[in-house]
Amino acid sequence: MNFQSDNVLGCAPEMLDAIHRANAGTAPSYGEDEISDRLRARLSAIFEAEVDVVPVVTGTAANALSVAVATPGWGAVYCHRLAHVYCHEYGAAEFYSGGAKLLPLDGPGCRIDAADLERAIAGVGHAAVPACVSLTQATEAGTVYRLDEIRAIAEVAHRHGLIVQMDGARFANAVVSLNVSPADLTWRAGIDILALGATKNGALAAEAVVVFKRELARTLPLRRTRGGHLLSKTRFIAAQLEAYFTDDLWLRHARAANTTAARLGAGLARVPGVRIVHPIDANLVFAELPPGLATALREADYLFFDWPKFGPNVVRLVAGFATDPATVDALAAAAARLV
Amino acid sequence: MNFQSDNVLGCAPEMLDAIHRANAGTAPSYGEDEISDRLRARLSAIFEAEVDVVPVVTGTAANALSVAVATPGWGAVYCHRLAHVYCHEYGAAEFYSGGAKLLPLDGPGCRIDAADLERAIAGVGHAAVPACVSLTQATEAGTVYRLDEIRAIAEVAHRHGLIVQMDGARFANAVVSLNVSPADLTWRAGIDILALGATKNGALAAEAVVVFKRELARTLPLRRTRGGHLLSKTRFIAAQLEAYFTDDLWLRHARAANTTAARLGAGLARVPGVRIVHPIDANLVFAELPPGLATALREADYLFFDWPKFGPNVVRLVAGFATDPATVDALAAAAARLV
Amino acid sequence: MNFQSDNVLGCAPEMLDAIHRANAGTAPSYGEDEISDRLRARLSAIFEAEVDVVPVVTGTAANALSVAVATPGWGAVYCHRLAHVYCHEYGAAEFYSGGAKLLPLDGPGCRIDAADLERAIAGVGHAAVPACVSLTQATEAGTVYRLDEIRAIAEVAHRHGLIVQMDGARFANAVVSLNVSPADLTWRAGIDILALGATKNGALAAEAVVVFKRELARTLPLRRTRGGHLLSKTRFIAAQLEAYFTDDLWLRHARAANTTAARLGAGLARVPGVRIVHPIDANLVFAELPPGLATALREADYLFFDWPKFGPNVVRLVAGFATDPATVDALAAAAARLV
Amino acid sequence: MNFQSDNVLGCAPEMLDAIHRANAGTAPSYGEDEISDRLRARLSAIFEAEVDVVPVVTGTAANALSVAVATPGWGAVYCHRLAHVYCHEYGAAEFYSGGAKLLPLDGPGCRIDAADLERAIAGVGHAAVPACVSLTQATEAGTVYRLDEIRAIAEVAHRHGLIVQMDGARFANAVVSLNVSPADLTWRAGIDILALGATKNGALAAEAVVVFKRELARTLPLRRTRGGHLLSKTRFIAAQLEAYFTDDLWLRHARAANTTAARLGAGLARVPGVRIVHPIDANLVFAELPPGLATALREADYLFFDWPKFGPNVVRLVAGFATDPATVDALAAAAARLV
Repeated sequence: MNFQSDNVLGCAPEMLDAIHRANAGTAPSYGEDEISDRLRARLSAIFEAEVDVVPVVTGTAANALSVAVATPGWGAVYCHRLAHVYCHEYGAAEFYSGGAKLLPLDGPGCRIDAADLERAIAGVGHAAVPACVSLTQATEAGTVYRLDEIRAIAEVAHRHGLIVQMDGARFANAVVSLNVSPADLTWRAGIDILALGATKNGALAAEAVVVFKRELARTLPLRRTRGGHLLSKTRFIAAQLEAYFTDDLWLRHARAANTTAARLGAGLARVPGVRIVHPIDANLVFAELPPGLATALREADYLFFDWPKFGPNVVRLVAGFATDPATVDALAAAAARLV
Repeated sequence: MNFQSDNVLGCAPEMLDAIHRANAGTAPSYGEDEISDRLRARLSAIFEAEVDVVPVVTGTAANALSVAVATPGWGAVYCHRLAHVYCHEYGAAEFYSGGAKLLPLDGPGCRIDAADLERAIAGVGHAAVPACVSLTQATEAGTVYRLDEIRAIAEVAHRHGLIVQMDGARFANAVVSLNVSPADLTWRAGIDILALGATKNGALAAEAVVVFKRELARTLPLRRTRGGHLLSKTRFIAAQLEAYFTDDLWLRHARAANTTAARLGAGLARVPGVRIVHPIDANLVFAELPPGLATALREADYLFFDWPKFGPNVVRLVAGFATDPATVDALAAAAARLV
Repeated sequence: MNFQSDNVLGCAPEMLDAIHRANAGTAPSYGEDEISDRLRARLSAIFEAEVDVVPVVTGTAANALSVAVATPGWGAVYCHRLAHVYCHEYGAAEFYSGGAKLLPLDGPGCRIDAADLERAIAGVGHAAVPACVSLTQATEAGTVYRLDEIRAIAEVAHRHGLIVQMDGARFANAVVSLNVSPADLTWRAGIDILALGATKNGALAAEAVVVFKRELARTLPLRRTRGGHLLSKTRFIAAQLEAYFTDDLWLRHARAANTTAARLGAGLARVPGVRIVHPIDANLVFAELPPGLATALREADYLFFDWPKFGPNVVRLVAGFATDPATVDALAAAAARLV
Repeated sequence: MNFQSDNVLGCAPEMLDAIHRANAGTAPSYGEDEISDRLRARLSAIFEAEVDVVPVVTGTAANALSVAVATPGWGAVYCHRLAHVYCHEYGAAEFYSGGAKLLPLDGPGCRIDAADLERAIAGVGHAAVPACVSLTQATEAGTVYRLDEIRAIAEVAHRHGLIVQMDGARFANAVVSLNVSPADLTWRAGIDILALGATKNGALAAEAVVVFKRELARTLPLRRTRGGHLLSKTRFIAAQLEAYFTDDLWLRHARAANTTAARLGAGLARVPGVRIVHPIDANLVFAELPPGLATALREADYLFFDWPKFGPNVVRLVAGFATDPATVDALAAAAARLV
């Protein structure tokens, strides 16, 4: 049983069905199709605001494009030291922005803090021109920013002329976790542009840049083509996203994943010697295991990654939209038996 | 009926089925899955050589990545003036290569010529350092390079230390047209790296960089990640390509498209006042229509693009893998009737 | 005697003296000094308009920086096929602009034409977004654009939203040749930004970006630092330029160079079999020599470059600010003797 | 009296004389001149090894070019958090390298440590590929790395395949401080490429990239042209450097500056309430002043910068090659009086 990542799971049947439906007949290519049109309207409704939408197929593309429109090459982009955009994308944001500087901040639970951001902006000197702050929601630690935290960060950012970008690879998990509206979690809290993920939450390959501060959208289509991210058969990406935002599929998936993760966390917390490292706000469980337990679990065919960034003997276990709760119960039971 | 492009058609059932099969259970992400492994072996067999394979989802990405490993930022990349890489991608190759100079050559049927390449290399001066030549096969004019033409170009290129890249967005159509082996059409003729297309020929979204000159592959995975082109669920791209190269699906598709295009060309050629602009070697038909005919056909619901690059009143009509031959007969009949 | 280039000559005594004067005591670094302040005022007076001034030390830097503020990475920059910015700088403009496409136009005497520009803009398609046109004045052929020609080009450019940049490596020679004011030759004719040269005309190393369309200046200082072009002891560059624009030194130098070139051209034109290739509007002489004459002259210790871009047996001879007229008479006499 | 920086001073007479001598007659441009040839031989002698030399006019250019040949765009460059290349150049190294990531390390006296480097390389994950380490010598804190420290860092770097670059903006001050040979301080200790400064130590504007690991030199001339750093009258830069390395001028200058700085430090240390922040190994003095003293000194016309990076009330005072020792005595006396 594989708990390595949300994306070891495949594609939800509703989204595959949407691909099938989109496959009938012919359609204009490069996003001129009807499904792409409908998607923009759908997302404007979801976010209670007119938004621009640029569908892409990877979270890295969505992040890099949305950061790139927010900073010149000489700009500084503030983010958490363990943010995906900083430490997992081999410099995609630097590439798309023409060499901007990602400046990492610290903070518990992979969350940055408005006061630290303020200090960092003040101290940047001649290193770069402060241009953007990037927040991951839910974070790489499986925690979520509360609305007031986002608002405080956005206040500092906007006061200094920065754009606020959100890496929403697990946006749905945060919406469900906080039980707030997508609008409250984004533009009403000060988010200017969002990299909205669906792949980790059940799509085959579908993400979107969603633009609230509309002037940021002006160069996005050109940057997308230039980056090789304009699919000729864009309708198949739009179809996935349309299905994702139909009948609350995205929220149902995220709720399932979060619930399963919480269940796994609770189960593991009862195992002697196991320490849960971060609050389980979303669908990620970080656990410090007693020596030997990780190996024993792997021998019992449970797959997961070590996560040394959170300390020795820490592992990451991910529950996805389709993770069977029985499997996490089994894992917790195995841990209790093998410890 | 839509003849605007190969990619107004959707996805072939065999390839959708492969996506379904790939959807069972969990699989390692980021290309560590079994299907991705098999794909490399499959393509090595198809090309009769050990190759490196980097699947992506757009032809622009495949082109940009394969050109980028072939040139530094100060390099010159020679291609035809109407090559897709030069005039349809908003500078993707420049972006990925860090600012290389694409230097266009002329030539009939969108084909460049070894002697012109030799002259261009000699005359480059301090503009750039000659680094790469890019050939589109089949070309943007629907013609194909013959093997001896490719060999002659590659001989010049290699003598001057250039890499030879092939834009194979319609590679299958060229293979079928020339009735040669994939190996003969590529590395045996001097091609070092290939942007291999499948999307125009029936995939949902699947292309691949195929590397014959192996040292060019070294930085490709890093460039792919940095460009945002490493899909977490890469298995779905690999599955499409595996199906594409199973039971000669790719060749059957291309043969159908080429045959239908030839049939359309023959039908149109019989219409008074119609002139076929380029030999129909592949699946593209460029026809100069008598004044008024294009409008009349569009009113009769035949969709296609004007193609002024090949002269006034020239239109492009594309036959795809699933274009019903009856529709091209109907179009030719309508043209004869409406002229 | 060396006629290879204007820059085989050294530095004018007035400008060396200015460096000496600037050397007294201490001064704030990085352009915060008084001479730099005065220079801006001086150039505003010379150009009869408030201008921004960014001193640098090479023409390539001045060109690349001024083009870079005029185009995004996906922009097209139109220039003559033989423009220095296109064919002598190993892609500096591409580098500074993040990969913009320089699209060459043809035209006699290295001059482009408004109608050709209009056609090129119309035909650019998806290759790039038209952003800038670059004119060299005086041109690489030693000709000059007349005011009405510049106005016509600028009209087309501005109507399509392009910035008009002038490569003024030999700006002084053009001012003298046309006998117009610097303002007439630049912003009054539609020039938005100027790469103003002094090195070829007597400086040790001094050029400046002069900005008429002020919003283009906003990012220039950052781009300069990032390009490594902010000299700590900028006062020494500013001092050269201040001396250059004092007592009409720049015009006196240019007048001398132009006159000497005309004298050389007249002398050579009298030699049987010699053909003057371009009108000698400035300080460059291109001459087609009878076979053998170039070699014979070089054996007689006259140094100059072959210039095959203008045809077989064509050579370039350059008269600089300090070229002794006697030496060009001697060269012409030697040519007459050796032919 | 201005102690703000080494570069508030002008140009040493010996170097101005060299410029004058280089001004006689004509000379080939773009570095093809005799002085440039001699310079390479001179530096090879100074460094006891065949070296490649690329003269430029700013330390930022020398740093950016030397880092750029040491890292691809996806590379990581390790340096101290307060290194000039990281925090004073608006991302020049990122620009020239195509977006590499500068990853800062901490350490007292602006020195990084081999063990920290080892840990950082181990932890880089998918952020970037470790490619280069950059050491400033003398450091931005006015301290110097000892030979064994450099060797330890280079050992780690080379074991992991990294290039070791030295920012030698104040290289002469370090040579004098340690009383070692230039060879010992560079390639014998593991330095692969050096940004060698002369401007802070008496030049008008002259720096050089000095390459010990010769294959790194291959693309340097192209990168220099592309960056706009190839001066047409390069002989004037070469002449400064030739004079700098004649009769130990560079060492005499550095010795004077270091001695004056030490004298200033000693004088200030005697003032009650003053704390010298870093060992004064070179020509920089960082002093924490009692509240009010900085203001009082400035009112007495002593100019210097606050340096909050080293703490509240810390100021930087720089002694240059031509700083009169009497002025530092006066400053110390004034401090004693005004405190």
